[in-house]
Amino acid sequence: MPLNPLKKILDVTLPPKSHSYKILIEPGSLNQLEKVLQDYITPGFGKILMITDTHVSSFLGQPLLAQLKSAGFETYLYTIPEGEGSKSLATAENIFSFALDIGLSRKDVMIALGGGVVGDLTGFCAATYFRGVPYFQIPTTLLAQVDSSVGGKVAVNFSTAKNGIGAFYQPQAVIIDTDILAHLPLKQLQAGLGEVVKYCFIENTCTGTTGFFNFLNTAANASDSPSSDNHSFSLAHLMPKFPEIVETCCQIKAQVVIQDEKEESGIRSFLNLGHTFAHAYEEITQYKAFTHGEAVVLGIAKACQLSEQLGILPHSETQKFQSLCQSLGLGITPPETLAPTLEPLQLLRLMKKDKKASGGFIRFILPIHQIGEVTIRDDIPDEVLLSIL
Amino acid sequence: MPLNPLKKILDVTLPPKSHSYKILIEPGSLNQLEKVLQDYITPGFGKILMITDTHVSSFLGQPLLAQLKSAGFETYLYTIPEGEGSKSLATAENIFSFALDIGLSRKDVMIALGGGVVGDLTGFCAATYFRGVPYFQIPTTLLAQVDSSVGGKVAVNFSTAKNGIGAFYQPQAVIIDTDILAHLPLKQLQAGLGEVVKYCFIENTCTGTTGFFNFLNTAANASDSPSSDNHSFSLAHLMPKFPEIVETCCQIKAQVVIQDEKEESGIRSFLNLGHTFAHAYEEITQYKAFTHGEAVVLGIAKACQLSEQLGILPHSETQKFQSLCQSLGLGITPPETLAPTLEPLQLLRLMKKDKKASGGFIRFILPIHQIGEVTIRDDIPDEVLLSIL
Repeated sequence: MPLNPLKKILDVTLPPKSHSYKILIEPGSLNQLEKVLQDYITPGFGKILMITDTHVSSFLGQPLLAQLKSAGFETYLYTIPEGEGSKSLATAENIFSFALDIGLSRKDVMIALGGGVVGDLTGFCAATYFRGVPYFQIPTTLLAQVDSSVGGKVAVNFSTAKNGIGAFYQPQAVIIDTDILAHLPLKQLQAGLGEVVKYCFIENTCTGTTGFFNFLNTAANASDSPSSDNHSFSLAHLMPKFPEIVETCCQIKAQVVIQDEKEESGIRSFLNLGHTFAHAYEEITQYKAFTHGEAVVLGIAKACQLSEQLGILPHSETQKFQSLCQSLGLGITPPETLAPTLEPLQLLRLMKKDKKASGGFIRFILPIHQIGEVTIRDDIPDEVLLSIL
Repeated sequence: MPLNPLKKILDVTLPPKSHSYKILIEPGSLNQLEKVLQDYITPGFGKILMITDTHVSSFLGQPLLAQLKSAGFETYLYTIPEGEGSKSLATAENIFSFALDIGLSRKDVMIALGGGVVGDLTGFCAATYFRGVPYFQIPTTLLAQVDSSVGGKVAVNFSTAKNGIGAFYQPQAVIIDTDILAHLPLKQLQAGLGEVVKYCFIENTCTGTTGFFNFLNTAANASDSPSSDNHSFSLAHLMPKFPEIVETCCQIKAQVVIQDEKEESGIRSFLNLGHTFAHAYEEITQYKAFTHGEAVVLGIAKACQLSEQLGILPHSETQKFQSLCQSLGLGITPPETLAPTLEPLQLLRLMKKDKKASGGFIRFILPIHQIGEVTIRDDIPDEVLLSIL
């Protein structure tokens, strides 16, 4: 088989070495998953427990299972209900019970096949089942491909705490097939693009490279279709660019994780650009009004506004961001109908109880100078925040 | 305050450096716990959540809490029911809820005050609450002081799997006050001595040093009281030696953990001497007939017998072991009344499903040459095993 020129392998090199792993990005890689796995599984391993959700199971889980079975693997599928509700200790316990029933041991592996919920939940199960079994991330949404599948943050929600119970636990490898993205509904693609836009804003500070914003902007505007007519709005023209888009995002995230695996030195906090606002927007609407990506874009818009008020970002940069969002069909202001819900004082209260708040002041990652550079600020007075909320 | 000549500090140096920690061994150290903690807590930390059980709470937990409160700490106590039943996900969830209620964050700390159950459970909660909060181990039994509090193995039981859900998560420090041991009932002290005897058997192979067996044997026989008269049997004469006994055990365990934090290279398996037999004895009697230490001693006796049969251990070494056990009041054969329960074929079946079994053959750590040296064997035929069970 000829080498796929679009195949990219990124290294996430961590101390200790046993935590290191690779990210494979290749259109069509799942068509030969059995070969990919063989490169990363130690000889003598036994069973594969693949965890997916009801949505992914039918169009991808079952076929992949059959494919692995006919390649001689002993494979089991566990399907969870689709949605955030599955990211719970109760679902984890069901998976533990299933794993015990099939006799899964530390020599076997788990595979997370799905979006962020499946990835976070499976990662948590892999991290804690018999104190840790090897696992693979196979992200099937853009959001998971560029964000949650890389970095080893695994968790379930607990009571009022999103990601309240979890661990830092790195996979054996992340296997990304960008061909999957062609099957995603527009709204889900846009949810992922929210995080993609975030990477444009932190690229230079995190990796020292530049150019991702321009690349994405050019790709986004390469369409002939009138983006103003919402009925015909499409991102089909972006499809050929996704291998490169995903690669750049993973490269940035990998660089950050390499420098700060467990959020100890602070570099990892750059990934939180827009997220303090986003979490407040999500929580105040009880996670019903926005996808995470939509909330992140709103958060970045607020971060730009704040930077402008502080005099650290020229308005022209905010305009470039707004223009990119328009090309991608991403909203930068909440819908009017939500105005009564998004009460500034309440939003501020939620932001203060966020993990990133410390001593009453909230820690913000803010764009500075130009798109690509960020800084950390924890000295923003409440009045300034209330004025922009 | 003059320096306590009995104070010892052992270093557990791990990669990455952030996993490294110290073991403090000092008679009376809890009398100044507030000072000890200050050395290991980063400035700006807030709350302390101390977790203990109903037994320890009354005689130690409450007084320590008052002591820390009057030193200015914001301290909370969570008390779990005494016993193995508390080592469950359900109890962990109760602790998570309590931690959320008091607003515990990643800047705060947890303290495990108790034996192995409290230590393993608290460690698991600390490992997973918000992906990890700092925690301290304060072991209050001999077994916990020499074994479970050191090494970062944390877990709860799940369904049929003992320690089925857990993690490797190192504490900030292990704080050992050997004065506590004077309050332990004889049976609990003996439970810990089972693991102490184990360290005699692995010392040379693990650390290259020798002499622990002779030290312990001399200490054990330094009593005038007739050890044959069970009514007056006492280990009071051992008390002055416990700082040194605990130190040596922790030193051996620390050396092993430094070389093999997560049971990856195999060295850590030496700690399992006698444990494959022990787990089978414990499981077949539904954890009701033996303390873990008692089962370990029975397991070591079986391991000696097996080594003798394989011709790798002289009988004189087994006799030395038997004589030591007699001095310490440790039984080396199960009581006659249990004979019908300890069915050889059943024991063999349990040993085969143990984590340490692989491909039908069981992996044994066996004494070789003389007490202090061990080897790994996974080639023992079932017939040989059945003949000694």
